[in-house]
Amino acid sequence: MYISKSFIPILKNNPSEAKIKSHQLMLRVGMIKQSSAGIYSWLPLGFKVMKKIEHIVREEQNKIGAQEILMPTIQSSEIWKESGRYEDYGEEMLRIKDRQNREMLYGPTNEELVTDIFRSSVKSYKSLPQLLYHIQWKFRDEIRPRFGIMRCREFYMKDAYSFDINDEEALFSYNKFFLSYLKTFKRLDLIAIPMAADTGPIGGNLSHEFIILAETGESKIFTDKRIFDLDSDGTNLEKDSLNKLRKKYEQFYSVTDEKFDKDEFESKVSEKNRLKTKGYRSWSYFLFR
Amino acid sequence: MYISKSFIPILKNNPSEAKIKSHQLMLRVGMIKQSSAGIYSWLPLGFKVMKKIEHIVREEQNKIGAQEILMPTIQSSEIWKESGRYEDYGEEMLRIKDRQNREMLYGPTNEELVTDIFRSSVKSYKSLPQLLYHIQWKFRDEIRPRFGIMRCREFYMKDAYSFDINDEEALFSYNKFFLSYLKTFKRLDLIAIPMAADTGPIGGNLSHEFIILAETGESKIFTDKRIFDLDSDGTNLEKDSLNKLRKKYEQFYSVTDEKFDKDEFESKVSEKNRLKTKGYRSWSYFLFR
Repeated sequence: MYISKSFIPILKNNPSEAKIKSHQLMLRVGMIKQSSAGIYSWLPLGFKVMKKIEHIVREEQNKIGAQEILMPTIQSSEIWKESGRYEDYGEEMLRIKDRQNREMLYGPTNEELVTDIFRSSVKSYKSLPQLLYHIQWKFRDEIRPRFGIMRCREFYMKDAYSFDINDEEALFSYNKFFLSYLKTFKRLDLIAIPMAADTGPIGGNLSHEFIILAETGESKIFTDKRIFDLDSDGTNLEKDSLNKLRKKYEQFYSVTDEKFDKDEFESKVSEKNRLKTKGYRSWSYFLFR
Repeated sequence: MYISKSFIPILKNNPSEAKIKSHQLMLRVGMIKQSSAGIYSWLPLGFKVMKKIEHIVREEQNKIGAQEILMPTIQSSEIWKESGRYEDYGEEMLRIKDRQNREMLYGPTNEELVTDIFRSSVKSYKSLPQLLYHIQWKFRDEIRPRFGIMRCREFYMKDAYSFDINDEEALFSYNKFFLSYLKTFKRLDLIAIPMAADTGPIGGNLSHEFIILAETGESKIFTDKRIFDLDSDGTNLEKDSLNKLRKKYEQFYSVTDEKFDKDEFESKVSEKNRLKTKGYRSWSYFLFR
């Protein structure tokens, strides 16, 4: 396929709706095209890049023993009513009635559905742990979609779920994902800092989010700059090794503005190591019991 | 990954909702799991098979010079109103209102959206032809979903679209897809017969559908059995060679019950070559001008 025959529609000017560089460039080189607010088509060039990223994500998930499944985009409201999140989710959830007038929705996330699959399939504790992931379209009806594909309404997301026999094993699974995310970002050549996060409305006992540094980012971050010297080299898929990795990162103060406390920052981080910068939230994940 | 650790939930008994063998077996060996009527999750084993099929489909599309894009599942109603198909499509179309009360829909097919992308991107006849395809989830709100993943509501479909400069070139593109489908089915080891089809409500000037033979099929087919001896070997991507291929298939009478005419069948096919059997509709495609 010659590039001259390829479908790569270049734009000569910056589209006025694109406020940040990445959005401008992706539109201008013909990687994506907006079809509705916060909804994009991936043109051949963008599609190739997206598939390469997907491939890396998949490989790193497989390496920690996670198994890929594929759940549908349209879910029944019943499982969400059972979990109690149907009303809680608010207007970001795209609610749909089918021709039989059944309440359906476009999945914004998949805890309910994967739990339904798990509970009807797994009959014995001997089948645990199970680490399941899927890469599928999600829809969240953002009131103000922005930044192109970064804060859009229909988006492609890898989400993973583990089912474990006790707290210790759950933490083991949790830490496996910690490693896989570090390795994924490294292969993508992105600087991502894992930060302890509030569990927020999703709940749970432990949560991290990986923040990708970017000047245009919406999250302010406050960090000990020594965290940038860390990596996951030498870590293997054993409990001790993974615990050590998490501790290595957690020794350095590193929070977003939601968790920021000036006194804590200044007492825990010496002046020469303090860094205030910005980033985007990428993966967040949660431990439940 | 040991098979003993894999998430392959086996069922001991045939689920009562599964009427045909393929549906029963896919459920029993843990390839798929129904989440709502006509909506399935793909479990690890089924997922692997599906991805292998997708890979073959993709390779054969790429070989004829088609370029892959990825359009979103959720579309605006505006382009469907413009084409006049919004009201026509009926209750099979899953209609949605977003939080801003805009009329959206879950794409049952993509003629409107791909045309919108094309018209806003391609400025010169020199950029033609363009053969674009995508593999994406579709939703058609079947009143009676059945046969497991074969007649379901949310389904994974490869659809392709070509834009050409004149009738002759459009036929050339059309014939390229004819070849790609024959090759795809051959690699999948499926017996598929290309049949001239009614263009139906979608319209157009020429249409074929590929029928896959199966005893449980919903389409009755009437055919000259010599069509089974044909293949696409030796065909290359040139106009004459592709035309010859189409003619080779079209010399043999081969129709579904919709187009069946007893007198025609008996006059065109000698008794020893007549075959009445059953099959499933697979790809159908259309030529427009």
